[in-house]
Amino acid sequence: MKPLPRHGDPRCPAVRNLLQTIGSKWSVIVVLHLSQGPRRFSDLRRSVGGVTQKSLTACLRELERNGLVERVVTPSIPPRVDYGLTELGQTLLEPLLGLTTWAVANECAVAEAQARFANADEDAAA
Amino acid sequence: MKPLPRHGDPRCPAVRNLLQTIGSKWSVIVVLHLSQGPRRFSDLRRSVGGVTQKSLTACLRELERNGLVERVVTPSIPPRVDYGLTELGQTLLEPLLGLTTWAVANECAVAEAQARFANADEDAAA
Repeated sequence: MKPLPRHGDPRCPAVRNLLQTIGSKWSVIVVLHLSQGPRRFSDLRRSVGGVTQKSLTACLRELERNGLVERVVTPSIPPRVDYGLTELGQTLLEPLLGLTTWAVANECAVAEAQARFANADEDAAA
Repeated sequence: MKPLPRHGDPRCPAVRNLLQTIGSKWSVIVVLHLSQGPRRFSDLRRSVGGVTQKSLTACLRELERNGLVERVVTPSIPPRVDYGLTELGQTLLEPLLGLTTWAVANECAVAEAQARFANADEDAAA
C-alpha cells in the first residue's frame, strides 16, 4: 500500500466540501464559462446549454455561497446583474483546466472503453 | 473577452463527458480511495463512508464503463473481487490531486465566504 498522496486524502473535510460543490452537475461547466469574464444570467444560460433556469440559479447560488462567484449589480434602469468569478474562483481555473486537458487528451481511450463495455454487456445478454 | 483557455472549452464533448462522470457525487472520492491499490467492495464502502450499496455499485459501474476502474477477480472459493484503477484511471490521479490541493489550500477562504453568505442571508431575513 502506498501512502495517500499529500493533500489528496479523500477523508479531508476540505476535499469533501470542494467535491460536493464541483460535484453538482453544472458547476464546473459554469465556472469554465465564466473564465472569459462576467456574464448575464440569460446569456450564461444560453451558452451553457441544456440547463433549466432553476438548476442554473441553484448552481450560481451554491458557487456564490462558496465564494467562487459574485453578482455584480450595475445600477442602471433596469438594474443589470452579471455573474463573474471572484479572485478565489479564478484560482480554481488552473486545477480545473488540468482536468479538462486530461479529458481532451484521453477522449479516445475513454470512448474505446465505453465501446468495450457496451459490447461486453451485449455478449452477456446474448 | 479573453479567448477560452486551450483545452478548457466547456463546449467540448470530451470535457462534458468527463465532467458528467466525475460530476457524480461519489466518483472522485472513490477514485482517490483506490489510489492506494485495489479494494474489495465492502472495504471500499466502509472507508468511503456514508455511501449506500446501491450508489457505490452504480458509481463503480460508471467508472468501469469509462475505463477508469476494473474488477479484478481472484478465482478462489468463494471468488474474491477487487476494484482497482486501470492505467487510464491512474493518469486521472494527477489532475484530481491538483483539485484536492486547491481545496486544502483554500479551505479557510471558502469557510469565510460561507460564513459571510450565511450572515447576509440572516440580515436579509431580519
